[in-house]
This record gives sequence, C-alpha cells and structure tokens, in this order.
Amino acid sequence: MGIAPSNDAPFRTIDDVEFGDGVIVRSFANLYGCRIGAGTTIGTFVEIQRGVVVGARCKIQSHSFLCEGVELEDEVFVGHGVLFVNDRYPAATAATGELKGPEDWELLRVRVARRASLGSGAVVMGGVTVGEGALVGAGAVVTRDVAAGAVVAGVPARAVRSA
Amino acid sequence: MGIAPSNDAPFRTIDDVEFGDGVIVRSFANLYGCRIGAGTTIGTFVEIQRGVVVGARCKIQSHSFLCEGVELEDEVFVGHGVLFVNDRYPAATAATGELKGPEDWELLRVRVARRASLGSGAVVMGGVTVGEGALVGAGAVVTRDVAAGAVVAGVPARAVRSA
Amino acid sequence: MGIAPSNDAPFRTIDDVEFGDGVIVRSFANLYGCRIGAGTTIGTFVEIQRGVVVGARCKIQSHSFLCEGVELEDEVFVGHGVLFVNDRYPAATAATGELKGPEDWELLRVRVARRASLGSGAVVMGGVTVGEGALVGAGAVVTRDVAAGAVVAGVPARAVRSA
Repeated sequence: MGIAPSNDAPFRTIDDVEFGDGVIVRSFANLYGCRIGAGTTIGTFVEIQRGVVVGARCKIQSHSFLCEGVELEDEVFVGHGVLFVNDRYPAATAATGELKGPEDWELLRVRVARRASLGSGAVVMGGVTVGEGALVGAGAVVTRDVAAGAVVAGVPARAVRSA
Repeated sequence: MGIAPSNDAPFRTIDDVEFGDGVIVRSFANLYGCRIGAGTTIGTFVEIQRGVVVGARCKIQSHSFLCEGVELEDEVFVGHGVLFVNDRYPAATAATGELKGPEDWELLRVRVARRASLGSGAVVMGGVTVGEGALVGAGAVVTRDVAAGAVVAGVPARAVRSA
Repeated sequence: MGIAPSNDAPFRTIDDVEFGDGVIVRSFANLYGCRIGAGTTIGTFVEIQRGVVVGARCKIQSHSFLCEGVELEDEVFVGHGVLFVNDRYPAATAATGELKGPEDWELLRVRVARRASLGSGAVVMGGVTVGEGALVGAGAVVTRDVAAGAVVAGVPARAVRSA
C-alpha cells in the first residue's frame, strides 16, 4: 500500500488515500479517506468519499460518485456517471433547521460483489447488495438486492434474465 | 454578502457570485453570475449558471447542474448528479442554422420550495415547481409540479405517497 | 483545423485534438484524440475520448461523456449529463481475470445525425443511430435506433410522437 497513484495527472485532489500497487487515477478526480485496491483504474470527474473500500482490478469510469458506506469487491466495473446513495431521507437540515451533521442520519451501506458490473448512469440506493457477477443495465435505479449472476434494468430495476 | 466562499479549495472557477456568510464551495466547482445563501454547501463538479438564486442552508451535492432560471428556497437538498432543464426544445442551432442565441428560446423557470429534497440523479424539467418539503426520488424525471409534502419517483415522476 | 480551442479557460486537459475554427471549450474539459468541428461549443466537466468525431456547430453541454465510437454530425445538441455507451457487456476484467484490453471487447458505434437533440441525462446505448432532427427526451435510455424526426422518451425510450 502506498499513498500515491502510480500515474501522474494534472488537477487531482487526493487526501488520505491508501493505494494498492499500480492504481491509475485520471485528472479531475477527488478522493479522500478511502482505500483503493491494486490495479484499479479511476476515471475523470470521479469523487470517492471517506470510508469507501474499492477492491483490486476494478474500473471506476468517469463522472461516478462513491459515497461513504460503499464497498466494492475485486474486479467490479462501475460505468460512467454511476451514483451511489447512502441515506433514505436526504435533507439539507435537521428538524431543528440546523445543517445536518453525522448524527442526524443513518448510514445505509452498499456492497457490490466480485466481478459485478454497473452500467453507465445507474443509481444504486443505500442498503443494497449487488451479487457476484451481476449486471446492472445502464440507467437503472437499483432499489433492492440484485442476486448473483442476475441481469437487471429499468426504473426501478427488475430482473431481465439470468446471465 | 461577500464575493468569496468561506473556505479555500484548489481548482475552482468563480466569477461574479454573491455569497452569504459561511458558504462552502468544494474543488472543481464552476459558478458564475449567481447568488448563494448563507450556510449553503456546494460539492465538487457542480456548475451553477448566471441568474440562479440558491437560498440559505442548502446542500448542493457533487456533479449537479443548476441552469439559468432555477431558484432554490432555503434548506433545499440537491442530491448528486441532479440536472435542471430550462428549455422545451433544446437545439444546437436556430432554424437559420446559426448557433442559437439568447433570443432563440423561451426560458422556463424552476422553483424548488423550502426544505424540499431532490434525490441523486433526478432530472427536473423547465417550468416545474417542487413544493415545500417534497421529496423527489433518486433517478426520477420530474415533468410536472410536485405538491408540497409529496413524494414522487419514476420516469416520469409520479406520486408514491404523501410524506 | 488547428490544435487549440479559440478561447482560453483554466483547468483543461487537451491532448491530440483537431479543432475547427471558433471552437469553444470550457474549464474542466478532458479531450483527447478526437476531432471537433468548427463553431462547436463544449461545456464544463465533459470528457471526449479518442476517435470521437463531432460535427460543426454542435453544442455539447456540461457533464457529458462521449466514448470512443461516437460520431455526431453537424448541429447536434447534447444536453447536460448525457452518457454514451460502446460495449454490451461491460466488465472490469476478462475471463482470465486480467484487466480488459482493447482486444477483449467489441466496439459498438453510435451515430447521431444532423440537428438531432439529446435531452439532459439521456443515456445512448452502443450500436444505436439517432436520426436527423430526432429529439430524445431528458432522462431517456435509448436502446434502439431513433427514426429521423421522431421524439422518444422514457426507460427504455419509446416514441412519443412524430415531430
């Protein structure tokens, strides 16, 4: 584990990240407090938040957002513009009118198992597990667990066929 | 009102913006000609266009785009990758084949009332009002007004239940 | 054809791009190995990959992603956050477990004909042709060819009416 990606690229902000060997991080990435496994590549305009764990040999494509609570196992594919969600009732302020702090919401975790693929523009809701080798279609909104090997698509995502 | 955010961060472009006290603007933001209320936070990879008015204590999350004609009241939550639209018939060029200019389209305004929340990946069409405290589900495409307190989801967005 | 846009803007990465006259490229754009026609404008947070051909007088709005295999004819409008796809079975690694290389997948091309418009948040799948003057609604997922002049919307996109 090192503290820098293996490539150089302009316009990146990287703070407190543990990198495995051979990680590539493109320009305009914003990574903080996360762990990125060996051989993973991270595209442009990607934000990965504190506490996220990304496995080895994953591909995180451009414009994607990985929030706190997300864990990707090895060899996961995250398409372009994929968004993860970790709260059920997003709000700017608590009932008191103060800006919400860490104690004002429940963190919903997301786990994406080995070799699963999330198509471009997919949204994955908090609390969901995507099974090993599953395929989430482009533009799908995943509101429930996806079984290993399943192929889902649509809003909300439903099974299309078994892989 | 000041002319700079309260925090510092690399790689921002900020031009002709009025900031309330305590506004936080993350890296890779592109703001111009807009007004941002006190205590609001603006995430990475966000663009806010000329004429936009954002209230106090809002949260604008990463990868969102606020176009001309958008007004957010106080304490509005805008999730990640939320897109606003302000024209009905987008086109690159006018019928003459020239690039469209300001006089070639009708600006459709969008108003989001106090304490409403827009889930990640939502698209809000021009001309729409989202009522106070309403919740727009992640990935929804909002084509019609959303009543105060309503919860909507889907493409196009429909009411799921009252909050 | 030149090798630089006609405007200046901070925080851009531009490598091996052929520009027509009068092309405007905003900040935070990432362009490489592509060709951009005269008079086209390219917004913030846009990535355009190697081999892409963009016609003249197009508008590519913020947060959009154009992958290898995309060809836009003249006067095409690409809304904000539009994503193109060029593979049917995205995956991080080949069956051998190695990161996928260029030989491990079939490139599916996308062609968008003259004066077509793609609404914000649309996803266009690989292999699709969008016909001349067609209009793709915001948030649509385009899985099949769109006829010239057609208007489509939804997930998956279906014809709403003829224009």
